[in-house]
Amino acid sequence: MDLTATTAELAAAATEVSRLLPTRVLDPVLAGLVLRAGPAGVELAGSDREHAVRLTRPATVHTDGEVVVPARPFADTLRSLGDPQVRLVVEGSRLAVRTGSARFALPLLDLASHPGVPHLPPVAGAIPSDLLAAVLGAVSSATSKDDALPIFTGVRMLGIGHRIELITTDRYRMAYATVPWSPEGSLNVLAPAALMADVARLPQQTVVHIHADEDRIALSWSGGSVSTTLLASPFPDERARKLLEAVIDSTVVVEADALAGAVRRATPYSGPHGSVTLQVEDSELRVRGSDPQTGESEESVKATIEGNRVTKTFQARYLADALRAFSGRRVELRIQDGLRSTVLTSQPGDDGIDLKYLVVPLRTVA
Amino acid sequence: MDLTATTAELAAAATEVSRLLPTRVLDPVLAGLVLRAGPAGVELAGSDREHAVRLTRPATVHTDGEVVVPARPFADTLRSLGDPQVRLVVEGSRLAVRTGSARFALPLLDLASHPGVPHLPPVAGAIPSDLLAAVLGAVSSATSKDDALPIFTGVRMLGIGHRIELITTDRYRMAYATVPWSPEGSLNVLAPAALMADVARLPQQTVVHIHADEDRIALSWSGGSVSTTLLASPFPDERARKLLEAVIDSTVVVEADALAGAVRRATPYSGPHGSVTLQVEDSELRVRGSDPQTGESEESVKATIEGNRVTKTFQARYLADALRAFSGRRVELRIQDGLRSTVLTSQPGDDGIDLKYLVVPLRTVA
Repeated sequence: MDLTATTAELAAAATEVSRLLPTRVLDPVLAGLVLRAGPAGVELAGSDREHAVRLTRPATVHTDGEVVVPARPFADTLRSLGDPQVRLVVEGSRLAVRTGSARFALPLLDLASHPGVPHLPPVAGAIPSDLLAAVLGAVSSATSKDDALPIFTGVRMLGIGHRIELITTDRYRMAYATVPWSPEGSLNVLAPAALMADVARLPQQTVVHIHADEDRIALSWSGGSVSTTLLASPFPDERARKLLEAVIDSTVVVEADALAGAVRRATPYSGPHGSVTLQVEDSELRVRGSDPQTGESEESVKATIEGNRVTKTFQARYLADALRAFSGRRVELRIQDGLRSTVLTSQPGDDGIDLKYLVVPLRTVA
Repeated sequence: MDLTATTAELAAAATEVSRLLPTRVLDPVLAGLVLRAGPAGVELAGSDREHAVRLTRPATVHTDGEVVVPARPFADTLRSLGDPQVRLVVEGSRLAVRTGSARFALPLLDLASHPGVPHLPPVAGAIPSDLLAAVLGAVSSATSKDDALPIFTGVRMLGIGHRIELITTDRYRMAYATVPWSPEGSLNVLAPAALMADVARLPQQTVVHIHADEDRIALSWSGGSVSTTLLASPFPDERARKLLEAVIDSTVVVEADALAGAVRRATPYSGPHGSVTLQVEDSELRVRGSDPQTGESEESVKATIEGNRVTKTFQARYLADALRAFSGRRVELRIQDGLRSTVLTSQPGDDGIDLKYLVVPLRTVA
């Protein structure tokens, strides 16, 4: 293998690949980055068996070839180079990274014992990267961080005609969104949280293809792909959809950012349970907090009210997460009786994302 | 107490004070922020006994007074307000923080049981804040993070006529600097590392007065002051100064940033001991690294050489810290024989800081 490429492009790709590889492994080949030079340029790939990434970058290839090198020092070296161009050339049992005044020689790892980078499942459909990032960003806060119950860490994604339905829940709140896409096959998966981190790093304003089969979900775009294994748990779709049928006691329409600001300011006064109280008044929503140590807070937010004058207490953090998903819009709070969840929703935006966010109120001492 | 002030100014000052106060204390008054309203405006003060800070901010004071409130919720609330002005008013057993639409009521803590904020020791002299920050920044990397040996965590500061002498060492390296100041009294202290963090937060382009006695060192400027207790250990001034008398084997003059870049690029190849080797050649310095896992590196940096062609191995991290202190300048490496330390120095800059940085080489297998 012998090639010349742009240092910055190669460094960014190597960093991306090395970030997902394990650092402490018994066999160093598992932390190896697979480099392949061919007519299409240079491909950088890596996999930790669950997760896999392939990135293709332009290069002037003098000699084709495929090698595995330790990912981290390769990425660190490329990132720290000041020279605009870099040459990668196999010299005996080393991959030499060469610039005008320096030579870095990385040992070649055994290509034959590398487990390989999984190939892409069939295409399910296509969606703009920004739209996918926006909808996953809106629903991701309702997932649990607790790996012990994997079903609550994932994003349920179901292709239904020209829309994808996305559901996340950690039992105390649930986000339900639909987003337009161009279907080409079937999509019926419970994607792991890792997918959300991948999407945040996608190139902007690109069309992304979603690939899926029974084992993996993958995203591909011009220049690369990432894939990850699915969560195996069955998701209670019907029960989740049923929660959306609200019996409304009171409807409050308010600027999401104004209410989010009031909730944030009440948070230092949210007490040992981190709770804030929303009190529906004639033409305003009163946000109150009370804490034995830090004192009390009370703030009014202008609102349009329809229905009863009710009072509900919520986990401040959950309310803040829900409101963030509606940032920049007017949000409608559909408050239900008793301990039934409050449904947050708004008019779908120009992007076509339709979002409902449910938050379960706290039981309060009467 | 009753006053109106600019929210942003008050929020910044409250954050500064609350940052230094302990969060988990048996008696909440110890985590209290002392607010005093008077003709000069409002003073925010706090102390954890070792460290103390006082900040004065302009305010329209309607009624004088002095109260203690929980620091963290007070700072959090002020920081999160959107209103440009805020009113602080004592209402019964509460300090109310009021804006147009909101009221936050913090409990008043017992002023009588607050330990008080220590007063400033006598003035020792004055120095521009940027110059003090620059010289402390240059010497601070040679201090130890290990509190078990407090002497190596401090900065020795000695006023000698119109210069301050500063020495830091963690045994493996030593920084020695002198900087001009305007003396007004005596300065002979071993200041704790906390002082360096304080200096980094000083307002820029201000004259700072240094205050010191046998127990404390303090910095004061128009608008505030910070003080901290001294380290009690005696510092071996004479032994430290003696180390500066180098018997030079080889002198290398090189761009500090060019050498720092080469050292940074060699770091992934610095092996289990984190070491890089500098080899003095005819008109260049060769920087080499070797690691059984990641491979080898070699880079040449242009240099002016005088003396013998020697080879020395250093801890890469120590070399990087030392070179950072000379960033933007040509640095002279005075290499001594055997395991005697290498002295890094340069022509004093326009700021008048004279710096010498010693790094002890590593013992290498012949």
